[in-house]
Amino acid sequence: MKKLRMGILGLGRLGYIHATNIAYKIPNTTLAAACSLVPEELERAKAELGVTDVYSDYRQMLANADIDAVAIITPSGDHCWQIEAALDAGKHVFCEKPLGVAMDQCKLAEAAVERHPELTFMLGFMRRYDKSYAYAKQKIDAEAIGTPYLVKATGVDPEGLIQNAIRISGGSGGIFLDMAIHDIDLMRWFLGSEATEVYAMGATFKHPEFKKTDDDETGVAAYKFANGAMGIVHVGRTAPYGYHVETEIVGTEGTIRISAVPEKNLAQLYNTSGVCTECVQGFPERFADAYLAEMEEFALCALEGRQPGVSVYDGTKSTLIGYATTESWKTGKPVKIG
Amino acid sequence: MKKLRMGILGLGRLGYIHATNIAYKIPNTTLAAACSLVPEELERAKAELGVTDVYSDYRQMLANADIDAVAIITPSGDHCWQIEAALDAGKHVFCEKPLGVAMDQCKLAEAAVERHPELTFMLGFMRRYDKSYAYAKQKIDAEAIGTPYLVKATGVDPEGLIQNAIRISGGSGGIFLDMAIHDIDLMRWFLGSEATEVYAMGATFKHPEFKKTDDDETGVAAYKFANGAMGIVHVGRTAPYGYHVETEIVGTEGTIRISAVPEKNLAQLYNTSGVCTECVQGFPERFADAYLAEMEEFALCALEGRQPGVSVYDGTKSTLIGYATTESWKTGKPVKIG
Amino acid sequence: MKKLRMGILGLGRLGYIHATNIAYKIPNTTLAAACSLVPEELERAKAELGVTDVYSDYRQMLANADIDAVAIITPSGDHCWQIEAALDAGKHVFCEKPLGVAMDQCKLAEAAVERHPELTFMLGFMRRYDKSYAYAKQKIDAEAIGTPYLVKATGVDPEGLIQNAIRISGGSGGIFLDMAIHDIDLMRWFLGSEATEVYAMGATFKHPEFKKTDDDETGVAAYKFANGAMGIVHVGRTAPYGYHVETEIVGTEGTIRISAVPEKNLAQLYNTSGVCTECVQGFPERFADAYLAEMEEFALCALEGRQPGVSVYDGTKSTLIGYATTESWKTGKPVKIG
Amino acid sequence: MKKLRMGILGLGRLGYIHATNIAYKIPNTTLAAACSLVPEELERAKAELGVTDVYSDYRQMLANADIDAVAIITPSGDHCWQIEAALDAGKHVFCEKPLGVAMDQCKLAEAAVERHPELTFMLGFMRRYDKSYAYAKQKIDAEAIGTPYLVKATGVDPEGLIQNAIRISGGSGGIFLDMAIHDIDLMRWFLGSEATEVYAMGATFKHPEFKKTDDDETGVAAYKFANGAMGIVHVGRTAPYGYHVETEIVGTEGTIRISAVPEKNLAQLYNTSGVCTECVQGFPERFADAYLAEMEEFALCALEGRQPGVSVYDGTKSTLIGYATTESWKTGKPVKIG
Repeated sequence: MKKLRMGILGLGRLGYIHATNIAYKIPNTTLAAACSLVPEELERAKAELGVTDVYSDYRQMLANADIDAVAIITPSGDHCWQIEAALDAGKHVFCEKPLGVAMDQCKLAEAAVERHPELTFMLGFMRRYDKSYAYAKQKIDAEAIGTPYLVKATGVDPEGLIQNAIRISGGSGGIFLDMAIHDIDLMRWFLGSEATEVYAMGATFKHPEFKKTDDDETGVAAYKFANGAMGIVHVGRTAPYGYHVETEIVGTEGTIRISAVPEKNLAQLYNTSGVCTECVQGFPERFADAYLAEMEEFALCALEGRQPGVSVYDGTKSTLIGYATTESWKTGKPVKIG
Repeated sequence: MKKLRMGILGLGRLGYIHATNIAYKIPNTTLAAACSLVPEELERAKAELGVTDVYSDYRQMLANADIDAVAIITPSGDHCWQIEAALDAGKHVFCEKPLGVAMDQCKLAEAAVERHPELTFMLGFMRRYDKSYAYAKQKIDAEAIGTPYLVKATGVDPEGLIQNAIRISGGSGGIFLDMAIHDIDLMRWFLGSEATEVYAMGATFKHPEFKKTDDDETGVAAYKFANGAMGIVHVGRTAPYGYHVETEIVGTEGTIRISAVPEKNLAQLYNTSGVCTECVQGFPERFADAYLAEMEEFALCALEGRQPGVSVYDGTKSTLIGYATTESWKTGKPVKIG
Repeated sequence: MKKLRMGILGLGRLGYIHATNIAYKIPNTTLAAACSLVPEELERAKAELGVTDVYSDYRQMLANADIDAVAIITPSGDHCWQIEAALDAGKHVFCEKPLGVAMDQCKLAEAAVERHPELTFMLGFMRRYDKSYAYAKQKIDAEAIGTPYLVKATGVDPEGLIQNAIRISGGSGGIFLDMAIHDIDLMRWFLGSEATEVYAMGATFKHPEFKKTDDDETGVAAYKFANGAMGIVHVGRTAPYGYHVETEIVGTEGTIRISAVPEKNLAQLYNTSGVCTECVQGFPERFADAYLAEMEEFALCALEGRQPGVSVYDGTKSTLIGYATTESWKTGKPVKIG
Repeated sequence: MKKLRMGILGLGRLGYIHATNIAYKIPNTTLAAACSLVPEELERAKAELGVTDVYSDYRQMLANADIDAVAIITPSGDHCWQIEAALDAGKHVFCEKPLGVAMDQCKLAEAAVERHPELTFMLGFMRRYDKSYAYAKQKIDAEAIGTPYLVKATGVDPEGLIQNAIRISGGSGGIFLDMAIHDIDLMRWFLGSEATEVYAMGATFKHPEFKKTDDDETGVAAYKFANGAMGIVHVGRTAPYGYHVETEIVGTEGTIRISAVPEKNLAQLYNTSGVCTECVQGFPERFADAYLAEMEEFALCALEGRQPGVSVYDGTKSTLIGYATTESWKTGKPVKIG
């Protein structure tokens, strides 16, 4: 069986998850190289993931490592040039979302992808590979709910992560660019249409620190789509019960709702609080299988010379919408998109 | 519109619920008389329910009150003679469950009912009139689950009532006679067959007081039915979360489960305990509508000269099964029924 | 016990529900008179509800009937003058929602209420009296979810009622005035603040007939509130599964969600479709108890000389917001409120 | 990182799942050899799992392969001698449940395990490693539900597998030995006590073929435990909705229920059937992660010189209870255990 030799760029929390999947959990991948600016991360990768070919310089890894592909799990602002460099070095590329933090960056990445149709490019919209979301899409494609015309998406981080959110606030581009990209992608994916207008607002009731950086704790946005459909996104950072990602797709013949209760597992406790279900506490717990499934698909695509369902244009479009949402939130006015 | 003039016997907690329904909540009933040994209860009925014709002697009420029917809500050991007296006085009779606490009593009641086919008799198996249970029965009658062959019934009182349960333990006939009669009736009703054998057991882990009276806190019984079907009953007294009545009917083509979560209402709380549903806290809360619906049906039956779905024989049979269950529990051996 | 003598105006579907409650289900009300333009409705009320004093002319009922109060269940456009007439005739008034269909009407009603502080006036926002909604409000008032800052409200009629919705479309004022008044009231009630801006949109994917009258099948609106809180309303007419009223109140310390599954009862069916819960099929089924509870509260208020929690101003405010929502929907622009 | 070199014996449906986990999904295992009587299975393992050292004779694999451990996934009747042979050959052993199909076999396996305390032995009670069951056990150990005193266990296969069940009926030892071993193990595990008596019964309503081999389609058993606790097991083969494994542990301070709805994923469909959740369709789908987790634990135990939580005695005890259950079912009488 042919294996895809992969190099990983970035070994932070999520990078390490991807590296472990590549090294141990996917039949047809090998973790052949790793690059990080943090020496301790490289030591850990050597010790635990068995990778021996390590780099502190990304371009050196591209030039010297015996790899077919790279996985880019770095700060968002670096994604696009790193994508371009890898493609131009002849490597297949998997890149974490978002594609970039500025439209001109995204256009560079688009151009690089277009220059290299022989290479596989995939953006890490892992929710599409979660079994519940994939099931919903299959049902919709099989017309189980008729024509979808409204998506209601919720994404709220657990309150437990709030100090980190406060710390990065200001540099993150604001709540919508920071948190709504997945929800925006899901709306586009489920509705099969492009957003044309957005109206957004925000609120901060618990942690006034967000106001200091002109950010908000919670955001709500309403979207119009080209085909007449509509979307609602609610993102936030202060769920006391855990990590709440919920999506509802309303169609002419039915509705699919995913994860109304963001359950930790299948157990229910009957106690003095009533009947209770504990919740997942973060994206690594909620989407562990999805991170694995997307990388499996990436490897298969690269080995088989295919492109995955998520394209570079999905990255550009979602970023574009994220910017428009941010503009509406800041100005208080509806903003046309595209 | 013709109204049924009713007298109530017994104005305790449940008696007062029935009296209120008769007085105010049912179009075709009038609360025309009331009888209680407790003067304060009669005073309250006068003040709040507007009944003026009150008695401390049951036979005097039967002899003198201008009533068509009586509702008997008294201690179980008195039901049968009170039924007999009312029927022989020409009154329709509604009687709370159980029919009686001894088989010879039940036979007296049966004979009285048979002597008066012109009168309506109804036993208060109110669960049959609960909208969820009635729905389940309709679905089963419509063959939605094929042939039902297993009923799993649960009935657990809230821990909050435990002191009363301890107090009456010893005089109650034990946990199965005290608590399993409704579940036994439901098994017979849903399966459409009679129990032929039972094996029962009990346990006491929290309140050793029950052991002093040879009673138990929790009971489990398994039943065989004449048509080959099976039943399981779990009754208890120590649910920390509330009043848990749950019933599952398993059939060849599907299963119906009623009240897996004994929800207080339709609200869910998402908080640090997870996602929680508060529970109902007792039978008056859980079955308020069923108490009303059964009395409405009784009144209609009496006015229209019909007999309701619950007959005196349902009372005798469930008591018989309750005794057999108790015998198995006490002896540790399976007991044949009937 | 003192009883409130009530006359009912309007005996259509909902009017008859109220009339039955007044006649039979509430201890301290008497249905003393009825008024309708439809002779058959009056005949039915005589036969089934036992009312003998009937009128085809509202002002005659006010002048001649021996009543303390009226319940007005008529087309929305008539509410305000009927309220005024009743109050000026010295009657307590219960009126179905909405208060009116034009702001100047509402102001007339407000003035009449202010002229008669000695009389009880109540608007029929019955959801507030539903046990799940009342429980949510109690929890919120007890600070169970901290400070509420976002309400997400859904109200979708069953597809089965669509022909009627199409028929009245054009005369109804559009989907928001027709369907969102309850959700608007709930937002105000739960957030304890007034809406200051709205942005609304609509879509029609299944029944193009709505487009002919410039109406829509589905509407979505986003609101800003004076205290910084936010609201989202989704109303529609085409739920294939039943009548879907769901409300979520998000607070700094937790969330309460009401009726995520608009269950018909407590039964679940396990069959070849999976595990299924059937849904309620309309407002009479969903809110039967709430219609009763609100009228009980009205009667108590009138007898005790109190005003209920729902005031005439709640009616004015919700209508004002409904108009602003409609304007935003029609113009595609955000609209300031008040 | 040290890796455990494993040989697999048996490459049927479940064997292949284990082989894939060993080969690709666990960091510290290597699939170093495989043995099967079916040449096609070995070819597939070579092609897809990359194993090159294959055998058709188990003893040859033990003698010649460069392996530290074996995983035995063969017909139940062969488990015990295969365990003995592997241990005596100095290999760590993972064996699928049940330990054996006769008590004397089990005793041989016990003796072999006792002869080799230096080797790790693990029985494949994978449910204990499912995240929901492991969570329940942690909660119980943390006294979240006080003292557990009743376990209600359900295990029903999907109707879709019925033809296979009919085919093997007669040779399987009957429904309890075939299907209840996991539930029996769970009762012992959660209650921390041994069963002392069982009363069992069976029923066949849909597929009379089972009666021809003195088997049943559905079985119900009630257990008494040494510490006074109780257990109920319901096993069956005809669930139309999927694979239904549900377990409830009732304690003095609360109850934990696992998988009341055997959901396929987190999606709910709102359609004309109501609100529906599709169900898992078999053990490979339901317990995929548990099969992986148990093998990870086995490898860690072998590498670290530990014994896992599941011992050979758990295998003997559950088989013993399975036999007693079968005897009660066949004789219709309670049977003492041990």
